Amino acid sequence: MPETRAKARLYIAADLNGGGSVDLTGGQSHYLRHVMRLGAGDAVAVFNGRQGEWKAAIGEGGKGPCRLEVDRQIRPQQDESDLWLAFAPVIKARTDFLVEKATELGVSRLLPVFTEYSATRRVNGARLSAHAVEAAEQCGRLTVPCIEEATPLAAVLRKWPGDRTLLVMDETGGGLPLNRVLAMDDAGKGYGRPCGILTGPEGGFAPSELDALDDLSFVKRTGLGPRILRAETAALAALACWQSMVGDWRDS
Amino acid sequence: MPETRAKARLYIAADLNGGGSVDLTGGQSHYLRHVMRLGAGDAVAVFNGRQGEWKAAIGEGGKGPCRLEVDRQIRPQQDESDLWLAFAPVIKARTDFLVEKATELGVSRLLPVFTEYSATRRVNGARLSAHAVEAAEQCGRLTVPCIEEATPLAAVLRKWPGDRTLLVMDETGGGLPLNRVLAMDDAGKGYGRPCGILTGPEGGFAPSELDALDDLSFVKRTGLGPRILRAETAALAALACWQSMVGDWRDS
Repeated sequence: MPETRAKARLYIAADLNGGGSVDLTGGQSHYLRHVMRLGAGDAVAVFNGRQGEWKAAIGEGGKGPCRLEVDRQIRPQQDESDLWLAFAPVIKARTDFLVEKATELGVSRLLPVFTEYSATRRVNGARLSAHAVEAAEQCGRLTVPCIEEATPLAAVLRKWPGDRTLLVMDETGGGLPLNRVLAMDDAGKGYGRPCGILTGPEGGFAPSELDALDDLSFVKRTGLGPRILRAETAALAALACWQSMVGDWRDS
Repeated sequence: MPETRAKARLYIAADLNGGGSVDLTGGQSHYLRHVMRLGAGDAVAVFNGRQGEWKAAIGEGGKGPCRLEVDRQIRPQQDESDLWLAFAPVIKARTDFLVEKATELGVSRLLPVFTEYSATRRVNGARLSAHAVEAAEQCGRLTVPCIEEATPLAAVLRKWPGDRTLLVMDETGGGLPLNRVLAMDDAGKGYGRPCGILTGPEGGFAPSELDALDDLSFVKRTGLGPRILRAETAALAALACWQSMVGDWRDS
């Protein structure tokens, strides 16, 4: 039988194994039937963040939620970048965009943080999760980044693991250029070394926040050039540079 | 007299010199009066892409367009990155976003190109220019990137200057990782060396397009890792890596 290429890719919560079946949600069923216009027998790829990616086929059925018949594993689960992004949320459309791009750029964990100059205090976690799932499905990741509840910066720093470098994007010029920081051996080099990136709101960090950050042994302040980048641009730029210089773009 | 910080920053077409005045457009006047809530005597910074940045003050006046009284130069004109971005336009909101981010990331010239798999054939140049101007005003640039008319890829390549490296973001894995390409001496290192980046539409380049690119001495194919990036993500990621590794982020 000739190989049929999966026409859609879905993240599901259930365990995956050959011969089993998976019931989709109403939203996923709608997407397959009415957006992708697929029907019984069409191939769909599924992943759950734990057991790789599997080929499945849409089962026979009426108008209710789709059931997928799971066939066989097409990609084993792999180690992915251990890269966190702590970011001060900005207005809704820009935060949505940031979550989508951070997912494509391989972030493993997203931590919305409130800082002194944060203009936005409300974060809709379910909305951000939906964007992360959609981006993970689209970009071929085998995981969906974990999205934490929004938390004040001080609390995030108190719980930050001491062995995880935190690269702070500092607009005041108080740090070395990012390429130099990433070239240093101890800056979270390679997949194995845990790293995090912190970006502030429009307006940057308060002087007292920068002072507090400087007191932490795992913090490195770094800069992204002479122009004033929007908050989400700084986050995406830092993630791209990290992947290119020390992450999984180096090998491909 | 104590220094008043400019509360707004505007790009204008007119020549700038101390003691002169500049008439703003209706849109700029509305922005100053009704968005920024500024009035007569308030400080505004202006730049025109040729003569640096100047401090000006809103003149007295009625309800018509504002006139600015230009005071003195606060930043001289500087050399900026000689970096072009040729990109296949995507849907409207994502192209708007791409133009905004490319401006923040220091692109000097934007070339919308139509490729074989381009899904979007309409590009509103005036709309893209407005986004570029707004982003340039916001990020502190002294220029606004030039936006060319949308053109088929083959025509762009025919006119491409032979001394300008063209880094082609190739999803097929047919190139070296970007960090390695940028580390090579001839890859457009530093401000002085002209460079361009080319990104395709969703779906990438056609095999015939990649073959044609390979025949050109100034082309280098390069990759951005194992995940499938959206078209605008690939463009932004490549620009950020270029600025960080060989552009104006290195020195700051």
